[in-house]
Amino acid sequence: MSTTINIAVIAGDGIGREVTVQAQKALDAAIAFEDASIAYRDFTLGADHYLETGELLHDATLEAIAESDAILFGAVGGVPGDPRLESVSIERSLLLRLRFAFDQYVNLRPARIHPGIGSVLGPDARADFVIVREGTEGAYSGSGGLVRGGTAQAIATEVSVNTAFGVERVLRYAFDLARTRDKRLTVVHKNNVLVHSGALWAQVQADVSAEYPDVTVDYLHVDAATIHLVQHPERFDVIVTDNLFGDILTDLAGAITGGIGLAASGNINPDDRFPSMFEPVHGSAPDIAGKQLADPTAAILSAAMLLDHVGLPVAGQRIRGAVDLDIEHRQDVGIRSTDQIGDSIAARIAS
Amino acid sequence: MSTTINIAVIAGDGIGREVTVQAQKALDAAIAFEDASIAYRDFTLGADHYLETGELLHDATLEAIAESDAILFGAVGGVPGDPRLESVSIERSLLLRLRFAFDQYVNLRPARIHPGIGSVLGPDARADFVIVREGTEGAYSGSGGLVRGGTAQAIATEVSVNTAFGVERVLRYAFDLARTRDKRLTVVHKNNVLVHSGALWAQVQADVSAEYPDVTVDYLHVDAATIHLVQHPERFDVIVTDNLFGDILTDLAGAITGGIGLAASGNINPDDRFPSMFEPVHGSAPDIAGKQLADPTAAILSAAMLLDHVGLPVAGQRIRGAVDLDIEHRQDVGIRSTDQIGDSIAARIAS
Ligand SMILES: CC(C)[C@H](C(=O)O)[C@@H](O)C(=O)O
Ligand SMILES: CC(C)[C@H](C(=O)O)[C@@H](O)C(=O)O
Repeated sequence: MSTTINIAVIAGDGIGREVTVQAQKALDAAIAFEDASIAYRDFTLGADHYLETGELLHDATLEAIAESDAILFGAVGGVPGDPRLESVSIERSLLLRLRFAFDQYVNLRPARIHPGIGSVLGPDARADFVIVREGTEGAYSGSGGLVRGGTAQAIATEVSVNTAFGVERVLRYAFDLARTRDKRLTVVHKNNVLVHSGALWAQVQADVSAEYPDVTVDYLHVDAATIHLVQHPERFDVIVTDNLFGDILTDLAGAITGGIGLAASGNINPDDRFPSMFEPVHGSAPDIAGKQLADPTAAILSAAMLLDHVGLPVAGQRIRGAVDLDIEHRQDVGIRSTDQIGDSIAARIAS
Repeated sequence: MSTTINIAVIAGDGIGREVTVQAQKALDAAIAFEDASIAYRDFTLGADHYLETGELLHDATLEAIAESDAILFGAVGGVPGDPRLESVSIERSLLLRLRFAFDQYVNLRPARIHPGIGSVLGPDARADFVIVREGTEGAYSGSGGLVRGGTAQAIATEVSVNTAFGVERVLRYAFDLARTRDKRLTVVHKNNVLVHSGALWAQVQADVSAEYPDVTVDYLHVDAATIHLVQHPERFDVIVTDNLFGDILTDLAGAITGGIGLAASGNINPDDRFPSMFEPVHGSAPDIAGKQLADPTAAILSAAMLLDHVGLPVAGQRIRGAVDLDIEHRQDVGIRSTDQIGDSIAARIAS
């Protein structure tokens, strides 16, 4: 009796659609070695879908997605400045709604300088760390408002909401992850200025770390963390931080480890009450969409994380191995289209 | 009749004290060419002072500092983890109090890869831009609180407060600055997620930019801005952003333009109702304090910004010229002490 993995596919907008096809090719090639099969269900969502139908994300759609074992997500977002999108936030109404509704409180973003690929930090730079970004609270709560909007007296507030519950569970996840790695955890916040949320993070860090005496913990302010990331990225093993700092640091981490075209992520619901969602860190990049210019590697590596998550780590590793080889031989092959990269990785997986 | 510039000196803690002495040497050397003199008044403040006396910043001290023409600031902050400092924030009670009390709403942080010094981005990297960081609102307001502290149900909020008044004045400053440079302005925020404050920033940007048709404006999300900073730093001319994003991006900018040992800043009150304050971007670095290991260049370049601000741009330029020469010859001279670097720059200014 073989298992079927039900994957909800939300390819989205722009290059999201191009790269997701390649991720599916990789999944298909990798699953062929397993006693398992994949059933895809496509959900057409995103800025284009909203402009055509007015749907951002209906409750019924959310419920249908909830039935899947995992979600393969491309990217969403329309052309910047499109006046028809001015009054909606596709990001909030779709992507963040999924993360929040499915309680994906661990946003896992590995960063590794692959042997054989250049880093902007030079040929000798080394990095192999994972950022654990909180995914369901902080400044992403949407709380806040506008008073006297449109006048010279306007005041807008934006409220970062942080709970002991939310901070503790993500810290525990990060400590557990550090235990499977080099046992070094760096907590990043800005507790010298954000004293309310910072004190909560510090308190929870102190409490939880007492239970993990085998893990070495240090703390960095977010501003200092950016310096270390570009000057000594090799010093990091696991980084844990809040939603907003995690957003910023993971893009920076992507940029220094071969570029955002390689940066994969998983929005994980660790208790498996809801499906987890796997997506490249990059956006929909409308400026290069439809031109076969996007690198599908980040989407493919996200698919590998999906396989790990559904209990097929050997298949996940097969994809990562193929990607490593592909990256190693990039210098030799010149510029390739999105399709060509996807085909070449799929072929390596199959062989 | 010659002018006297009254400078309040807050050397602070750790390496703040070592580098401030060097900045004063540079000021003294540069002022000698002007029909002006400098009168210093020292204010002993910071973590050490707090531990000795219990003073963070008395109102009377603040009033005395307010009488100065400008403030030369080193760095403040005790040893991380010192239990005696656990319940106070030297940063909030001293540094941020000064910025807020003196309405220093423009935090000006130039970033330039100096010819002849290495960048972590490699020998060909080029960058010459200025970050205008809002200095008196945003997430730095201190608003927020803690409910059910110390329990598993604790909730901490942190409120970013943004006003049309505050955003408009800093944007205007940035537009005016862009006019004196390459006329390109990049506004950085995260308006796809922080929809309340982001919409306010976008609205003010649209309004103000209409008055500056000669300045090319673009917008970047803060996460994307970090990517551009490490991949294409040469694309920036003037960046304007909020207090928290500015904190993060200026450390990153320092790290890629020769290191935080060169990063200068001015906390400017443009209407001159209050003194402006000039400080290196780096902190008090207690781990290397007292060892003559700190690079005083950032403090010296901050002193040059002070001279510009008090109407002595030729003297400011004299310091910058000397620093440029010093940096250019760094390879030849090997490792120098804080004093030696300060002496060598002062000598170049004098000659
Ligand atoms: C698109 C946007 C809402 C999203 C975020 O801010 O989380 C993205 O930047 C990311 O990092 O996944
Ligand atoms: C010390 C700290 C309060 C300060 C800030 O966050 O503004 C520092 O990081 C800076 O950038 O000047």
